[in-house]
Amino acid sequence: MDFLSRQTPGFSGADIANVCNEAALIAARNGKKEVDRQDFLDAVDRIIGGLEKKNKIITPSEKRAVAYHEAGHATVSWMLEHAAPLVKVTIVPRGRSLGAAWYLPEERLIVHPEQMLDEMCAALGGRAAEKVMFNKISTGALSDLEKVTKQARAMVTIYGLSDKIGNLTYYDSSGQSEYGFTKPYSEQTAELIDKEISSIIEAQYARAIKLLEDNKDKLIELAEVLLEKEVIFKDNLEKIFGSRPFIVEDREGPSK
Amino acid sequence: MDFLSRQTPGFSGADIANVCNEAALIAARNGKKEVDRQDFLDAVDRIIGGLEKKNKIITPSEKRAVAYHEAGHATVSWMLEHAAPLVKVTIVPRGRSLGAAWYLPEERLIVHPEQMLDEMCAALGGRAAEKVMFNKISTGALSDLEKVTKQARAMVTIYGLSDKIGNLTYYDSSGQSEYGFTKPYSEQTAELIDKEISSIIEAQYARAIKLLEDNKDKLIELAEVLLEKEVIFKDNLEKIFGSRPFIVEDREGPSK
Amino acid sequence: MDFLSRQTPGFSGADIANVCNEAALIAARNGKKEVDRQDFLDAVDRIIGGLEKKNKIITPSEKRAVAYHEAGHATVSWMLEHAAPLVKVTIVPRGRSLGAAWYLPEERLIVHPEQMLDEMCAALGGRAAEKVMFNKISTGALSDLEKVTKQARAMVTIYGLSDKIGNLTYYDSSGQSEYGFTKPYSEQTAELIDKEISSIIEAQYARAIKLLEDNKDKLIELAEVLLEKEVIFKDNLEKIFGSRPFIVEDREGPSK
Amino acid sequence: MDFLSRQTPGFSGADIANVCNEAALIAARNGKKEVDRQDFLDAVDRIIGGLEKKNKIITPSEKRAVAYHEAGHATVSWMLEHAAPLVKVTIVPRGRSLGAAWYLPEERLIVHPEQMLDEMCAALGGRAAEKVMFNKISTGALSDLEKVTKQARAMVTIYGLSDKIGNLTYYDSSGQSEYGFTKPYSEQTAELIDKEISSIIEAQYARAIKLLEDNKDKLIELAEVLLEKEVIFKDNLEKIFGSRPFIVEDREGPSK
Amino acid sequence: MDFLSRQTPGFSGADIANVCNEAALIAARNGKKEVDRQDFLDAVDRIIGGLEKKNKIITPSEKRAVAYHEAGHATVSWMLEHAAPLVKVTIVPRGRSLGAAWYLPEERLIVHPEQMLDEMCAALGGRAAEKVMFNKISTGALSDLEKVTKQARAMVTIYGLSDKIGNLTYYDSSGQSEYGFTKPYSEQTAELIDKEISSIIEAQYARAIKLLEDNKDKLIELAEVLLEKEVIFKDNLEKIFGSRPFIVEDREGPSK
Amino acid sequence: MDFLSRQTPGFSGADIANVCNEAALIAARNGKKEVDRQDFLDAVDRIIGGLEKKNKIITPSEKRAVAYHEAGHATVSWMLEHAAPLVKVTIVPRGRSLGAAWYLPEERLIVHPEQMLDEMCAALGGRAAEKVMFNKISTGALSDLEKVTKQARAMVTIYGLSDKIGNLTYYDSSGQSEYGFTKPYSEQTAELIDKEISSIIEAQYARAIKLLEDNKDKLIELAEVLLEKEVIFKDNLEKIFGSRPFIVEDREGPSK
Repeated sequence: MDFLSRQTPGFSGADIANVCNEAALIAARNGKKEVDRQDFLDAVDRIIGGLEKKNKIITPSEKRAVAYHEAGHATVSWMLEHAAPLVKVTIVPRGRSLGAAWYLPEERLIVHPEQMLDEMCAALGGRAAEKVMFNKISTGALSDLEKVTKQARAMVTIYGLSDKIGNLTYYDSSGQSEYGFTKPYSEQTAELIDKEISSIIEAQYARAIKLLEDNKDKLIELAEVLLEKEVIFKDNLEKIFGSRPFIVEDREGPSK
Repeated sequence: MDFLSRQTPGFSGADIANVCNEAALIAARNGKKEVDRQDFLDAVDRIIGGLEKKNKIITPSEKRAVAYHEAGHATVSWMLEHAAPLVKVTIVPRGRSLGAAWYLPEERLIVHPEQMLDEMCAALGGRAAEKVMFNKISTGALSDLEKVTKQARAMVTIYGLSDKIGNLTYYDSSGQSEYGFTKPYSEQTAELIDKEISSIIEAQYARAIKLLEDNKDKLIELAEVLLEKEVIFKDNLEKIFGSRPFIVEDREGPSK
Repeated sequence: MDFLSRQTPGFSGADIANVCNEAALIAARNGKKEVDRQDFLDAVDRIIGGLEKKNKIITPSEKRAVAYHEAGHATVSWMLEHAAPLVKVTIVPRGRSLGAAWYLPEERLIVHPEQMLDEMCAALGGRAAEKVMFNKISTGALSDLEKVTKQARAMVTIYGLSDKIGNLTYYDSSGQSEYGFTKPYSEQTAELIDKEISSIIEAQYARAIKLLEDNKDKLIELAEVLLEKEVIFKDNLEKIFGSRPFIVEDREGPSK
Repeated sequence: MDFLSRQTPGFSGADIANVCNEAALIAARNGKKEVDRQDFLDAVDRIIGGLEKKNKIITPSEKRAVAYHEAGHATVSWMLEHAAPLVKVTIVPRGRSLGAAWYLPEERLIVHPEQMLDEMCAALGGRAAEKVMFNKISTGALSDLEKVTKQARAMVTIYGLSDKIGNLTYYDSSGQSEYGFTKPYSEQTAELIDKEISSIIEAQYARAIKLLEDNKDKLIELAEVLLEKEVIFKDNLEKIFGSRPFIVEDREGPSK
Repeated sequence: MDFLSRQTPGFSGADIANVCNEAALIAARNGKKEVDRQDFLDAVDRIIGGLEKKNKIITPSEKRAVAYHEAGHATVSWMLEHAAPLVKVTIVPRGRSLGAAWYLPEERLIVHPEQMLDEMCAALGGRAAEKVMFNKISTGALSDLEKVTKQARAMVTIYGLSDKIGNLTYYDSSGQSEYGFTKPYSEQTAELIDKEISSIIEAQYARAIKLLEDNKDKLIELAEVLLEKEVIFKDNLEKIFGSRPFIVEDREGPSK
Repeated sequence: MDFLSRQTPGFSGADIANVCNEAALIAARNGKKEVDRQDFLDAVDRIIGGLEKKNKIITPSEKRAVAYHEAGHATVSWMLEHAAPLVKVTIVPRGRSLGAAWYLPEERLIVHPEQMLDEMCAALGGRAAEKVMFNKISTGALSDLEKVTKQARAMVTIYGLSDKIGNLTYYDSSGQSEYGFTKPYSEQTAELIDKEISSIIEAQYARAIKLLEDNKDKLIELAEVLLEKEVIFKDNLEKIFGSRPFIVEDREGPSK
């Protein structure tokens, strides 16, 4: 019933190996001697989203809703320093997904609250775009909401990143609570946790709404390109938004 | 003890295949060379409701109550833009059901709150008709209530469609709560959820009551036709209500 | 320790077959060529209550208490339009039961709150009679209380028949709660449910008390006949109360 | 650690058969040709309390405490109309029990709250005597408290005998709650239940205290006889208290 | 991490048999022809504490803390009428225990609250001594706290010895709660129980503190002897405190 | 996602044996005839942290964050009397850990609250350094928070070291709660426990912040040395801070 616009959390090494393999197969199947960019992108799609199913029945207005939802993700994540850099956005349906936005995976070793909040804001960018453009939201944001809820809960109850709950954790690395009875905190603490989670999420939703209202012309431009081409890449985004002003630090790899 | 007036959620492909098969068998059994409309309708009935049981003892006043209950569903769903379009209403008892209203299944890919609310209103149209006509309600609405309760709960706790609870979800796609203790929210949140569910449902019930009071003459006309014919179709509805003013967008199928 | 004055919920077809069989056997055992009314009534007793055990030690005052309890059920149910029509009342002990009132089973297809309330009032008629006559109640009403509590709970939490809880249900036809954590509602809702159940029951108890106080002479007359004869039938009731003023609608059977 | 002064709940038929057998064996062992009263009483002791263990180390002050505890039960139950009639009191230790009071079992078919309250008062008579005589209580009343707590809880939650909770029951004869989630009532109801149970028990304790204070001379007389003789019977009680003013109704047995 | 200064709850018959055996073995091993007092004491130590482990690394300040902790138990229990009479105190580490105080077991048949409170006070004497002498407490009192907490809880919830909770018990001799849902009381009662337990314990802690402050010179004298000799007996205590003013009633044994 | 800066709880005898073995192997592998200091340190690393993984991709700013986090632990623990003495700090990534601080294990037999609080302060020194230096914290403190939360909870609910909860324990040495229903305390007590845990932790965090602000120059000096050398030892710390002013009592070992 819902469309699931997925934001990938990043590729593992094994994923990348799979993609390379698949890309080679695609190129071979198409009689090419070299594996080009398109083969790789198709391979990525196939590994994560399953085979393309072009035969899904979709109405023009649904297509439009998906395009704006995905454009919302793309626009918000482009504008936020700590959100993962976007690679590709598609509205070709695949599996249960009606559209998807792909990001360059970042293996962060230390995560700061600013980064978590930016990612939550980007995840809420899909629903925010529906709200800003059509003034009506949908069930399509379910997986975004799940991601955001878990992130906010982790900030508050696991990583000690909420002022109100403070520098403690309800995480138990042993997998079994040590001195523990069923629930390790009181009802009052449960209420405080709920309020913190809610206020973190609503703040990011409001921020996403604000960002998209301030950049409504670009959001529209992007969504319309997406409707026309069905798949767009970083280049298309740069043409609309200009290059991102944030400098991303390089990781010192093993070869250095 | 209760009659279960069912609103079908729509047919799957497999269901349709079954119906075609069954229709062919019915036609053959009746010595026909072609499968006509009645064979199909009988097949639908058989697949979903089981064989007709005409031998159920039913009093005239019960029959009347069922007719008005079903006419209530039909009237409300006809009047609401986002409710599924009605195909057939019957008060021939079948299995545990004393009556039923069949709708054209709609495979919606994106669901908006407006659609959910219209469907809930239509589901409450049965009880609303009992109230409006006889000023007494019955246990016959049990399955309608179950549908409506689950829908409202999903809006609030799954799809993040309640302003008071906000853009979060208590859904866990992994099927096992990640950081989770038994109940993922506080008593206070539980209260808020109960209030939201209740206010969503009662608003739709009030809306159904209002719609039926404003169209009481048509409700009566429809119910009386139903009492007389026991089964009515879209045509009968159109004769009473005129055609629906809403334009339903076509889905672009795979053949396009 | 408690006497269980049972109000039968009605006979199934299989029960009736059993009774006929048993009645034939009883008649044969008594050397009769025909099965008469008494044989049938004895068969009913045997099927439901087990064999008569006349050897139970019972004091005269206990006998009196049982007689008034059963007469209370009979009187209240006679006076209420929607209570099931009474067939027989007995104070011959049988199994764990010291007395019983048998009703004509009614297979209702649609149940209205008025009917539920009348039946609850009749079920509370036993304890109400103890209260009205002796101004002291006993443990003998346990099974009546169980019936009444479950009925009231069902009205509130299953059939959506309480204004305060509204048109929702906590029933799950799938047998497993769908989005569910242990308890599907908050403490506040639990309180509301308790209050509704309690106020429904106490209203019917008060109504039963009122009915019996207004008809105390008839209650006494009935109980004294019962003490004398140990078993009474519909005829005896009609002699005391006159015929019931309510017209019960006939069911249209399969043969019609 | 605690002495358990037991009040027997009555003998079953099987118990009585056992006692007769045992009495015959005791008489035979003692070379008697007839079974006399003492043989029967010894048999009763053996069946219920196990063999006498005279070798238990007990201090004079403990003996005294036990005697007054048991005399307390005996005095209170003698004075209350609905308490079971006393047969024998002993302070000979047996098994885990340091003393015991035996009552004539009464198989009541209908139990009134007055009877329950009288029995609870008698059960609390042991501790009340400790309080009245020594102004200090002990752990020895544990089994009395258990009996009283269960009785009070049953009055409130099972038999509908509390005004505040009303004519409903949390008993489920099917052994599995029908519409049920874990706890069938709200916290508020749980509080009300606790308060009712507590006020029922404390009222009976206060009543037992009052009864013993008003009859302190007789309590002392009885306890001193008990200390001297270790076992006393109904006759001894009658000598001190006079015969009971209450007329107990005979049961009409099967032979009538 | 904690030192466990154990107060033995008393020896069973089997324990005593074991001790005699062990004492004989020790005497034999040491080439003695008779079993003397020391052999018995060593046997007691071995049965309960395991073999002496002199090789445990312990700092002088830790030794001092243990000595004062144990002297605290000894001093308080010497001063309280109902605390069990002390036999031996040791600060030789054994197993997980850094020190221990041995008492003459008393098989009490009737236990009064005064006795329970005195024993709780003595159990808290260890921590109280740490507080009085060093104004800092430690984790070493864990087993004392466990004993005291369970005792206080039993007074309140099992033996009906708290005025606020009254003459009822949450004990179920059948081992399975009869009418029972998970927790047999309300949140409000749970709070009351917590408060009662807490106030019982804190009163005894305050009493232990007071006793030790009033007898600080004797506490110091005792602790210093203990530090010097590592093991002290009843005689040493009597030399410091004089003989106990309380007369302990003899038990009338089976041989009497 | 998080870096885990571990504070070791100390080596067991078996650990030390393993380390010696491993050190001998390392020396042999490097063609040395004697096992020198570096071999031992490498062995320690290998036993606890697994093999060095120099190929982990880490950005300069991450490296810097890790260095300050570890320097924070080192600085705070150096300044607190009861914190375990530091041996080595490293920012060479190993397994899931990006850095680590090693301490001399102390087998304390008696633990005072002062020691627990100092250790909690040192554990929070990592996050405190992030806050003081960069004014932003990270997920890297997860294992520190877990340690601190468990310690604070143990102080309050196990060792009776909180004034507000008092001298009781919710620890059950038998491993199964004796009189116990699921949770052994009320909601109100649960709230009190939460507040105590929170206030203990936040006080130590504030203390760590204060200590680091007061010694910011030394913190920076230490972190910069660490960034340069990647591994530093007690000597480096002494060069920056001077020797610790606290005299640590020697344990009297078995050989004395």
